[in-house]
Amino acid sequence: MLTLKTWSTKPHFWLPRSDKDLLEMADFEEAKDKVLMGTARRSMVISEEEKRNTAYHEAGHTLVARMIPGTDPIHKVTIIPRGRSLGLTQQLPIDEKHTYPKKYLLNNLAVLMGGRAAEELVLNQTTTGAGNDIERVTETARKMVCEWGMSEKLGPLTFGQREELIFLGRELAQRRDYSEETAVLIDKEVTRLVSEAYERAKKIIQENMDALHALAQALLERETLAESDIDAIIAGDVPAPKL
Amino acid sequence: MLTLKTWSTKPHFWLPRSDKDLLEMADFEEAKDKVLMGTARRSMVISEEEKRNTAYHEAGHTLVARMIPGTDPIHKVTIIPRGRSLGLTQQLPIDEKHTYPKKYLLNNLAVLMGGRAAEELVLNQTTTGAGNDIERVTETARKMVCEWGMSEKLGPLTFGQREELIFLGRELAQRRDYSEETAVLIDKEVTRLVSEAYERAKKIIQENMDALHALAQALLERETLAESDIDAIIAGDVPAPKL
Amino acid sequence: MLTLKTWSTKPHFWLPRSDKDLLEMADFEEAKDKVLMGTARRSMVISEEEKRNTAYHEAGHTLVARMIPGTDPIHKVTIIPRGRSLGLTQQLPIDEKHTYPKKYLLNNLAVLMGGRAAEELVLNQTTTGAGNDIERVTETARKMVCEWGMSEKLGPLTFGQREELIFLGRELAQRRDYSEETAVLIDKEVTRLVSEAYERAKKIIQENMDALHALAQALLERETLAESDIDAIIAGDVPAPKL
Amino acid sequence: MLTLKTWSTKPHFWLPRSDKDLLEMADFEEAKDKVLMGTARRSMVISEEEKRNTAYHEAGHTLVARMIPGTDPIHKVTIIPRGRSLGLTQQLPIDEKHTYPKKYLLNNLAVLMGGRAAEELVLNQTTTGAGNDIERVTETARKMVCEWGMSEKLGPLTFGQREELIFLGRELAQRRDYSEETAVLIDKEVTRLVSEAYERAKKIIQENMDALHALAQALLERETLAESDIDAIIAGDVPAPKL
Amino acid sequence: MLTLKTWSTKPHFWLPRSDKDLLEMADFEEAKDKVLMGTARRSMVISEEEKRNTAYHEAGHTLVARMIPGTDPIHKVTIIPRGRSLGLTQQLPIDEKHTYPKKYLLNNLAVLMGGRAAEELVLNQTTTGAGNDIERVTETARKMVCEWGMSEKLGPLTFGQREELIFLGRELAQRRDYSEETAVLIDKEVTRLVSEAYERAKKIIQENMDALHALAQALLERETLAESDIDAIIAGDVPAPKL
Amino acid sequence: MLTLKTWSTKPHFWLPRSDKDLLEMADFEEAKDKVLMGTARRSMVISEEEKRNTAYHEAGHTLVARMIPGTDPIHKVTIIPRGRSLGLTQQLPIDEKHTYPKKYLLNNLAVLMGGRAAEELVLNQTTTGAGNDIERVTETARKMVCEWGMSEKLGPLTFGQREELIFLGRELAQRRDYSEETAVLIDKEVTRLVSEAYERAKKIIQENMDALHALAQALLERETLAESDIDAIIAGDVPAPKL
Repeated sequence: MLTLKTWSTKPHFWLPRSDKDLLEMADFEEAKDKVLMGTARRSMVISEEEKRNTAYHEAGHTLVARMIPGTDPIHKVTIIPRGRSLGLTQQLPIDEKHTYPKKYLLNNLAVLMGGRAAEELVLNQTTTGAGNDIERVTETARKMVCEWGMSEKLGPLTFGQREELIFLGRELAQRRDYSEETAVLIDKEVTRLVSEAYERAKKIIQENMDALHALAQALLERETLAESDIDAIIAGDVPAPKL
Repeated sequence: MLTLKTWSTKPHFWLPRSDKDLLEMADFEEAKDKVLMGTARRSMVISEEEKRNTAYHEAGHTLVARMIPGTDPIHKVTIIPRGRSLGLTQQLPIDEKHTYPKKYLLNNLAVLMGGRAAEELVLNQTTTGAGNDIERVTETARKMVCEWGMSEKLGPLTFGQREELIFLGRELAQRRDYSEETAVLIDKEVTRLVSEAYERAKKIIQENMDALHALAQALLERETLAESDIDAIIAGDVPAPKL
Repeated sequence: MLTLKTWSTKPHFWLPRSDKDLLEMADFEEAKDKVLMGTARRSMVISEEEKRNTAYHEAGHTLVARMIPGTDPIHKVTIIPRGRSLGLTQQLPIDEKHTYPKKYLLNNLAVLMGGRAAEELVLNQTTTGAGNDIERVTETARKMVCEWGMSEKLGPLTFGQREELIFLGRELAQRRDYSEETAVLIDKEVTRLVSEAYERAKKIIQENMDALHALAQALLERETLAESDIDAIIAGDVPAPKL
Repeated sequence: MLTLKTWSTKPHFWLPRSDKDLLEMADFEEAKDKVLMGTARRSMVISEEEKRNTAYHEAGHTLVARMIPGTDPIHKVTIIPRGRSLGLTQQLPIDEKHTYPKKYLLNNLAVLMGGRAAEELVLNQTTTGAGNDIERVTETARKMVCEWGMSEKLGPLTFGQREELIFLGRELAQRRDYSEETAVLIDKEVTRLVSEAYERAKKIIQENMDALHALAQALLERETLAESDIDAIIAGDVPAPKL
Repeated sequence: MLTLKTWSTKPHFWLPRSDKDLLEMADFEEAKDKVLMGTARRSMVISEEEKRNTAYHEAGHTLVARMIPGTDPIHKVTIIPRGRSLGLTQQLPIDEKHTYPKKYLLNNLAVLMGGRAAEELVLNQTTTGAGNDIERVTETARKMVCEWGMSEKLGPLTFGQREELIFLGRELAQRRDYSEETAVLIDKEVTRLVSEAYERAKKIIQENMDALHALAQALLERETLAESDIDAIIAGDVPAPKL
Repeated sequence: MLTLKTWSTKPHFWLPRSDKDLLEMADFEEAKDKVLMGTARRSMVISEEEKRNTAYHEAGHTLVARMIPGTDPIHKVTIIPRGRSLGLTQQLPIDEKHTYPKKYLLNNLAVLMGGRAAEELVLNQTTTGAGNDIERVTETARKMVCEWGMSEKLGPLTFGQREELIFLGRELAQRRDYSEETAVLIDKEVTRLVSEAYERAKKIIQENMDALHALAQALLERETLAESDIDAIIAGDVPAPKL
């Protein structure tokens, strides 16, 4: 285990408030999450139903990510609420990327859809909790079609001219500079990309339903799973949960 | 009965202006309503017709909420005007919610439509008084379709890009970034959600017309009903009103 | 007759500039009109044709209001120009209203159309003078359809999202958030409401043409008619005018 | 002849710069035109062709106005350039008007079209000189349809909501709040009103071609014609011009 | 030759920087061009191909202007770059115009198209160099249709309401206040006017191809041609160029 | 080799930070790239896959540019990341251009598409890395159609009126002043131009696949190729790479 002598007697704000003499790897992990996502809200009151929903949602993301070769590995998955989210599946890229192949983006769309797919298949419901996933999946699919020329129907063109409002110091809106006919085509392509990603996520989950239940159950029991835990659970080294 | 010693000889502004030595639960209830809704306007002149209309409107919300399993319990219902509203049906969730399942939202739409449904069925009229319910029901249905991906016709996508105007410190408008064809689909889905909720509310009221009359009559007599009163009236423990 | 001692030796600006020691009811009536509508412009030069037109216009409003049961009573009707209007029909509600039933609003639309209906039927012309009535009738009909859910074709939904521009301290515009197809439906419903109100006003006037002539003639002779005068004229207690 | 002692030894800027002791009516006429239209530009270089064009243009307005009963009388007509216009036909209403009947507005549209009609019929050409007439005729026709409810096809409704921008202290734009279908109807009605006015003006001029030539010729010779001159010329008391 | 004593020993900035005692007409010509177009850029590096292109472009404008009776005479034509343009054809109206007949404008459209027409016919290519001509030709054609009522299809109406933004001290935009159907008509008429002008320019050039070659060749040799030179070249007094 | 004595003992910021006494041509090349593109980021971590992708992308640009007669010569091509780009193909025009013929622009479109074409043909994928090429190709094609009149379908007109917002000191947006029908035509023409350029680039690469492999391999080995290197590689003077 990596340990580190604290380099100051007066620990920084993101360091664990304890009287430890040595920092462990877990302290860094906690510090990183605190900075990125906000403080863990362990005292937050969450109903059993919501907890179960969150567990299946995150298990869905995790399972889809693990089952598609070429997606970034799962660093950890947790249902400890932090900041504004009830749970989190954290992927960590193997290498720094500067450009993204279409195939990589398509995989990402499926992973993003994994949460809602699991909710729908297992719990037979959809919730507002997937709102952020839906926003991100739509944004990515739209960029694939309108900025990166990744739709064969529309070709290698950009659609929509960015309007920078200098006095606001930021880009405000993307102005529509195309016809209604093109707008229809764009909508169809974006919808197609998202629908295909959703169907793909559902198919993966249906074919690995035991692993999904195992992951969700493990999350409900242990709250956080590391990469190695996930691999063991999916491999069936952990007995299937009783639901 | 819970009583409490006032903790200061100089009562806060929202405390009852009386010379009580002890605060009762009712004092807290009043203080809460005052902060949330404004001062009760007991001296406001309201015609008998409007009072009767309000009673049936609130009875409609209450009845629909009570008859659909899984909606939040009614805390109280009142026709004492307060702030800008002539009456109020107050629901109190059992547990704190962070995400809302589609089913829960559909129930809410029906409860929101209960007021107008009662007016239409019993008094054979619609009034401007339901304007706020209509605004909320439309807003919720639109979010279900455009932000939370809850329409199967449109799929798990978001529609309309939020435009934040930083210099105003708030989000100003949702920019339409979809085609006219998609706009037609959205309108149809939003209208379908609201219409189905309205029909559902009307069906519930029609099947429980005696309870509606009883609730409205009780409201006209007693002005405010607590959860236990409501249960007793719906259960028929209170004789039906003569109208 | 109600008289009142002036409560100050220095009369307020809206009090009659006279050396009266006692205020009569008429002084209050004048003061109220002055505050609401502006100063009476008795010296304003108006052609006989315009005066006759105004008389029939106001008589139209008055007659329609009197003939539809359930509209607010006419307080007075006048063709003395005041502020920016050449004449005025003043209705006074019996009781304070906080909500408006659809039926009440439909009646109002007909009353608002009464002025133009009289002009068209008797003088066989339309003038710009009805511009303000037309604006109000359109605004009300649009709100019935788009804010108060009073069109069965469109259902209990709101259409058009209000955009508040905080820095202007007021609501600036209603943003269109619906499809062109819905816009067509809204236009048809608004037009239908106004057209039906117009036909209704014309029908009432045609069936009471003698009363219209009598009211117009009395206005040309006496300039202002009180509620009791109006009732007498419509009842035929005043001989029909010779035109 | 009305003369007037100047009331100050230091004449006001708009008074004739002369050493007159007495002001004549013509001095007032000049002063009024100077204030309303700008200084007369007698030294402005205008080609013979343009002068002839202007003469026929103004003669067209004048003739149409004189031939339609019920239009305001012509005070004078001139081809002396003043301010930004090459010529002017000045109508002076008999009585102050506060409202305008539809018939009066239709007449006005025809008078406004008289200038271009004359140019087209006699000179077989159209010029940019009629741009201002066209703008006014379109604006009036649009108001008849959209603000004054004078189109039977569209009915007594207003179309387009005015947007007042308070911080600019003025109304900036009329927001379109109607459907594309309604926009088509409005365009058709506005175009119909203008086209009918144009045809009417052309018909009047064709039926009084001698009078048009006489008026134009007189304008080229005398530059300004008063009401009495015009009547005499149209009555044929002045010999037809040789062109 | 007109000479003029300089009226100051300290010559103004736009006077030739030389030790001349007398100003010739050419000095005024240079001064005028400098003020209107910017400094002549004789040292600018221009490829032979571009020079040849420019010569044919300007020769095209010149030839079309000379061949259509009634256009303003050519004052001079040059391929010396000045300011932001590589060449210039300068027309000088015979008389000051205050209004423009439709025929005059149609001629202008053809002259404006003469440059590109020559490029296409002789060099079989189009270049970005005609961008400014195209912008002006479109603007003029649009004004003919939308401001000056010169399209018979659309009639004597204006289309598009000007929006003046007072706080910017200038007119910012022309607001579209017409239907999509009308927009289609406008586009068709504007396109028709420009296309007809282009065909007309091409026809004139094709029928006078020798003159075009002669003008272009003379420009390449002499850089600037005066009115008299142009007349002589077109009359064939100058031998045809060898290309 | 051109050398130059440094003209100051205190070298400017863009000069190589070394103790050289003499500047070589390479120092100027580096200084120019630094100013234009940013500092070379030799230490940037790039995966083998991305490096290979970049090599083929730049080789694609280079090959297309070299194979189309009349395009500007390649100055150098590199896969050393600099500023925000992973690689760069630098063309250097033979002569300064002030106008661009349509043919030259069409060639440019093909060169811009060469990068993505190579990626798709060899690596069978598209990446976000071509986003900037796509943006530029769309912008150029749109200008050809809408500003330079280079589409025969739309003719020599401009489409879209520029809106200058003076208070921002820059042009903000191009306002759409044409009909939806025209918008459809524009979209079709812009798409056609880009698609044809893409097909042309793909055809050139397919017909010179050996040269593409050779160029990419050379780039992976040497990182930067000068004009002479490129010519030698394409001529086959360099053995084909083993992949």
